[in-house]
Amino acid sequence: MILTASDPRWAPLAVRHIDRVLVDHAHCEKKAASQALALLAAYPERWRLVRELSALAIEELRHFRSVLAKLRARGLALGRDPGDPYARELHGLARRGQEGRLLDRLLVAGLIEARSCERLGLLGEALGAHDLAPFYARLARAEAGHAELFRALAASYAPADEVSERLAELARAEAEILSALPLEPRVH
Amino acid sequence: MILTASDPRWAPLAVRHIDRVLVDHAHCEKKAASQALALLAAYPERWRLVRELSALAIEELRHFRSVLAKLRARGLALGRDPGDPYARELHGLARRGQEGRLLDRLLVAGLIEARSCERLGLLGEALGAHDLAPFYARLARAEAGHAELFRALAASYAPADEVSERLAELARAEAEILSALPLEPRVH
Repeated sequence: MILTASDPRWAPLAVRHIDRVLVDHAHCEKKAASQALALLAAYPERWRLVRELSALAIEELRHFRSVLAKLRARGLALGRDPGDPYARELHGLARRGQEGRLLDRLLVAGLIEARSCERLGLLGEALGAHDLAPFYARLARAEAGHAELFRALAASYAPADEVSERLAELARAEAEILSALPLEPRVH
Repeated sequence: MILTASDPRWAPLAVRHIDRVLVDHAHCEKKAASQALALLAAYPERWRLVRELSALAIEELRHFRSVLAKLRARGLALGRDPGDPYARELHGLARRGQEGRLLDRLLVAGLIEARSCERLGLLGEALGAHDLAPFYARLARAEAGHAELFRALAASYAPADEVSERLAELARAEAEILSALPLEPRVH
């Protein structure tokens, strides 16, 4: 779903500060679960969405707990969530009012998952023989499935033309938001 | 943890309107998961709390999905959440500011779980040979474990005297709040 590759300096930076990435990653998984719950609470009449996003929230919480265990093993504290300007800006692109809002929220969530998938995959590769490499390779595969889930939900609630047109717009915006933010050792 | 038994008219009313109870119950499980996430997000530095409440959120979401399946099987819609005056009033009793807030939030959550346990247990018994009876008996047992979890977390973060004193106050308030609300076919 994303249009651009991450800056090639991101993965080496993330490897050098893997502890900071881990902490940020834990917060990302927690927020992905909360976002899934907020979305299903907003659209209780959509059976498929409610069913699939409740399953997704469980999976994100399982990932959160896996990352927590890694933090604990490395003597790291979770600490206060500093917020995620990337996700906040992207969520801000979703249209207000009923018309188009569901579609936008699904596509934005899908783009965030697609970017997380790319980044966790890059990190898994860049970690080489590090003991966290297989962990990140596995989580990158899971995120790919989540991006696909959001795209499929979008396709089930809006005509194909509208989905692809709006996705193209939002994906361009995603690339701009990411490139305008400073390069940091965090998931996005 | 609760001081009073429910009005004896509640269980027969709930059985007569079991469909409305099921819908309300689904929303309760969803909100229990969201509340657990909100609590762990507010206290990220408390390892035990974060670990146990993330596991609790997963369990509440599993229950939510079980109740959803029952709704679906009975042709019921989840629909918009009408809100829960009982829980809202109880949450409103938690002290503001740092001092005592964590203790209050844990005890309030425990009281809500304890009341849910009582009510789901009563419902399981009153349903007799109804196919939902074993479902509710099982969920009542789970809620008992949740009440105990919140009480144990409270005991790990505050002195025993303070916990029992504040619990006594909040439990009295819980009984008053419940008795002032109209008797309805909902979990609380």
